[in-house]
Amino acid sequence: MADAARRLKQETAEPNAIAEEVAKLLEMKAELGEEGKGKFVLKTPKGTRDYNPKQMAIRERVFNAIITCFKRHGAEVIDTPVFELKETLTGKYGEDSKLIYDLQDQGGELLSLRYDLTVPFARYLAMNKITNIKRYHIAKVYRRDNPAMTRGRYREFYQCDFDIAGQFDPMIPDAECLKIVHEILSELQLGNFLIKVNDRRILDGMFAVCGVADSKFRTICSSVDKLDKMSWEDVKSEMVGEKGLSPEAADRIGDYVQLHGGLDLIEQLLQDPKLSQNKLAKEGLGDMKLLFEYLTLFGITGKISFDLSLARGLDYYTGVIFEAVLVQQENDRVEESVSVGSVAGGGRYDGLVGMFDPKGRKVPCVGVSIGIERIFSIMEQKVEASGEKIRTTETQVLVASAQKKLLEERLKLISELWDAGIKAEMLYKKNPKLLNQLQYCEDTGIPLVAIVGEQELKDGVVKLRVVATREEVGVPRENLAEEIKTRTSQF
Amino acid sequence: MADAARRLKQETAEPNAIAEEVAKLLEMKAELGEEGKGKFVLKTPKGTRDYNPKQMAIRERVFNAIITCFKRHGAEVIDTPVFELKETLTGKYGEDSKLIYDLQDQGGELLSLRYDLTVPFARYLAMNKITNIKRYHIAKVYRRDNPAMTRGRYREFYQCDFDIAGQFDPMIPDAECLKIVHEILSELQLGNFLIKVNDRRILDGMFAVCGVADSKFRTICSSVDKLDKMSWEDVKSEMVGEKGLSPEAADRIGDYVQLHGGLDLIEQLLQDPKLSQNKLAKEGLGDMKLLFEYLTLFGITGKISFDLSLARGLDYYTGVIFEAVLVQQENDRVEESVSVGSVAGGGRYDGLVGMFDPKGRKVPCVGVSIGIERIFSIMEQKVEASGEKIRTTETQVLVASAQKKLLEERLKLISELWDAGIKAEMLYKKNPKLLNQLQYCEDTGIPLVAIVGEQELKDGVVKLRVVATREEVGVPRENLAEEIKTRTSQF
Repeated sequence: MADAARRLKQETAEPNAIAEEVAKLLEMKAELGEEGKGKFVLKTPKGTRDYNPKQMAIRERVFNAIITCFKRHGAEVIDTPVFELKETLTGKYGEDSKLIYDLQDQGGELLSLRYDLTVPFARYLAMNKITNIKRYHIAKVYRRDNPAMTRGRYREFYQCDFDIAGQFDPMIPDAECLKIVHEILSELQLGNFLIKVNDRRILDGMFAVCGVADSKFRTICSSVDKLDKMSWEDVKSEMVGEKGLSPEAADRIGDYVQLHGGLDLIEQLLQDPKLSQNKLAKEGLGDMKLLFEYLTLFGITGKISFDLSLARGLDYYTGVIFEAVLVQQENDRVEESVSVGSVAGGGRYDGLVGMFDPKGRKVPCVGVSIGIERIFSIMEQKVEASGEKIRTTETQVLVASAQKKLLEERLKLISELWDAGIKAEMLYKKNPKLLNQLQYCEDTGIPLVAIVGEQELKDGVVKLRVVATREEVGVPRENLAEEIKTRTSQF
Repeated sequence: MADAARRLKQETAEPNAIAEEVAKLLEMKAELGEEGKGKFVLKTPKGTRDYNPKQMAIRERVFNAIITCFKRHGAEVIDTPVFELKETLTGKYGEDSKLIYDLQDQGGELLSLRYDLTVPFARYLAMNKITNIKRYHIAKVYRRDNPAMTRGRYREFYQCDFDIAGQFDPMIPDAECLKIVHEILSELQLGNFLIKVNDRRILDGMFAVCGVADSKFRTICSSVDKLDKMSWEDVKSEMVGEKGLSPEAADRIGDYVQLHGGLDLIEQLLQDPKLSQNKLAKEGLGDMKLLFEYLTLFGITGKISFDLSLARGLDYYTGVIFEAVLVQQENDRVEESVSVGSVAGGGRYDGLVGMFDPKGRKVPCVGVSIGIERIFSIMEQKVEASGEKIRTTETQVLVASAQKKLLEERLKLISELWDAGIKAEMLYKKNPKLLNQLQYCEDTGIPLVAIVGEQELKDGVVKLRVVATREEVGVPRENLAEEIKTRTSQF
């Protein structure tokens, strides 16, 4: 296991570094090409990629696991347009707004590509006056970010969102969102993971008791959010140097944000002489306690960590926030070469729908977003490492012939099979060689060959060949579809 | 049947007209809102729409039928980015290029939203030097067209494309594309349909023998393309008045384009003293004859019409072209109120990939695109008319309680069911009333209720209630998941 992982690392780390270099060179070439004019560059836009059939097969597996989980939890599904009115997105993403793709003004409305699925969801709820829904939405979103494609960061990427909107008793939907993350990450077998949980109210209460001015909550919060990538020293110097916080306040924050634990930590903070005096923090801690009780009933607290350093960048969160990360294990360095970071995140946003409602009517919401591209990068590496041969079609049988001049007979037979619901292919040649037809099955993993020949036509049978064993049996033509179904039912 | 159809028409035609008016008014209101500044308009961009859960359920049915068919024919699947380099799309769509959405230049590359899936496919083939693939691709495309949303015409809409690329013996892949259209339209039961077939080479040969100058082929072709919406007189006056064709040449074209039929017509034209002298036309007619022979083997010529008026707008076709339309039947006026027109189209484009290849290497392609939005409009109306109640979730069981203070027990039970793969929901309330819980099942179509009560907890059983019959049975807790699976296996 350790050996295999090490070998994998050697095999994958280098191609990754090379791929990154190649990407940079292509980028430079593309820029030169544009200056050179007329030189056409054959590429996809920066930060995007095509999916080939093999990648799509892996992607479908991941999507199926996620959709199955969302449906298991009773979610409906909706879809929204890829672009929104520009003003729909305005003022929802704080500093990240600069990453939004705008469409050119070609007369008519000003439009932007969606940045996430949460804001369109809130717009959908307000527009249709929906106060109660549990829905999932799987679609691409767009961010003019600095792509790091070998690490699964793209400018066009899928989000898989599950949200519960409605006025309910506290923490029940929130707990279900965490259960969903737990189910999906377990199901996909990505390795060990940890779900960090915090609450915006606890953060705000903490900032208040540490002496941060109200007006600085958001910007200090976004500094704290960097703790997963930066050291505390660097975050502190940003808070003090750039954001004008006193070093004492920063140190007080520093004491809190290093804390993480479970119910015990919650109890301890509920007794904390400063925090317990703050109304927001007390509310947040009370709800956190309730949340952990529900998570205990779900049996998943083993992978949940109440972590005071978790802040989440987005402006719209109002309560519980959470983020799932893959945890590197001894003897398991698969993730190391990918360094994927966060694979899911979410939280409660009770104010967002109200921003769209003319009368400001609020619809409380909580939701989770699965970071599918990063998961996909890992799955792709796992498949590569396991040497598993992935089929990219589901074809059950190749309709073939051993002699010449049987194209018409092949067309007749394949048509019968299609009409009987059999997944069938044939080579698009008048007189293909049998060897080439068998080789095609080997290459693409088609398990059966239905061979028409003159003798078989006379006898009213078709020769059915099992590719793996080379076994051949004559099957009466009228039973052929049924025989193929039986023999491929395990696929 | 006739009565039902008439009733349906009365019920649907008016709402359509109203919806169209409302859309116009909303549009005007939106424009006023923009002028009035600061007034935020809650809407989706012009020509786009959200899909609600009920619409998504119908959409999934249609997609499933289409994907099942594509897979039955051995297709792989790919995906490409929603936008391409602007120059990738340049020079591919003729007059329609003005309908392309451009992204704003925010520094970096100039990008456009894809206009169809065919050009990205050709770019994909050339970029990856693929000379042989059978793939499908289902994704949204974008056209700044004049939307007519009640008739299923949008600015953002799905295309479902199936294409076969590679150098093969003539007409075998082309015939398969037509078989696919036939299978999908039959499967979806949209009513009677007709697949019109023609060939660009026959059209070009016809133009030549009618005395059209080479340089005018494309523009005259796009006039002919309007014959499904305009009368011959109007098309002729466009040819003569706007495009400078002689009235005699136009009349000669007029004689040809009124012809449609089957093998007999092909034979007749192969004997036509003028056409038979034209190399292109002869080639096209020869292949058309071969195509009809293959379609006869597939048993589908009954719904295929060789139609000399079929031209297809796009520039890139080089051989066979086809288009499927729904045919209005006596006693069946469902389509009338929708007036959907073409529901599928495609053809052969042997030159497109070569436009992307630095050395101009060609990869012959033929493909079909299913017009899903129009099909979806019809399906939606059919569901509406049939009064069928569409479920928007797949939930098998609601976990409920008859007494208070059982939230924890419900959470424990639902967690067990989820972990056993059961699709289960519960109300997010501490103490919901049993009546409300049962009502929720009625509203959403959940077939079973698992009721926990104090006595049942003591006895180690759960009361399982069948919503439809109100029958209740006590099931030992360890057998519950299995019992639910058995009872909902027909769903």
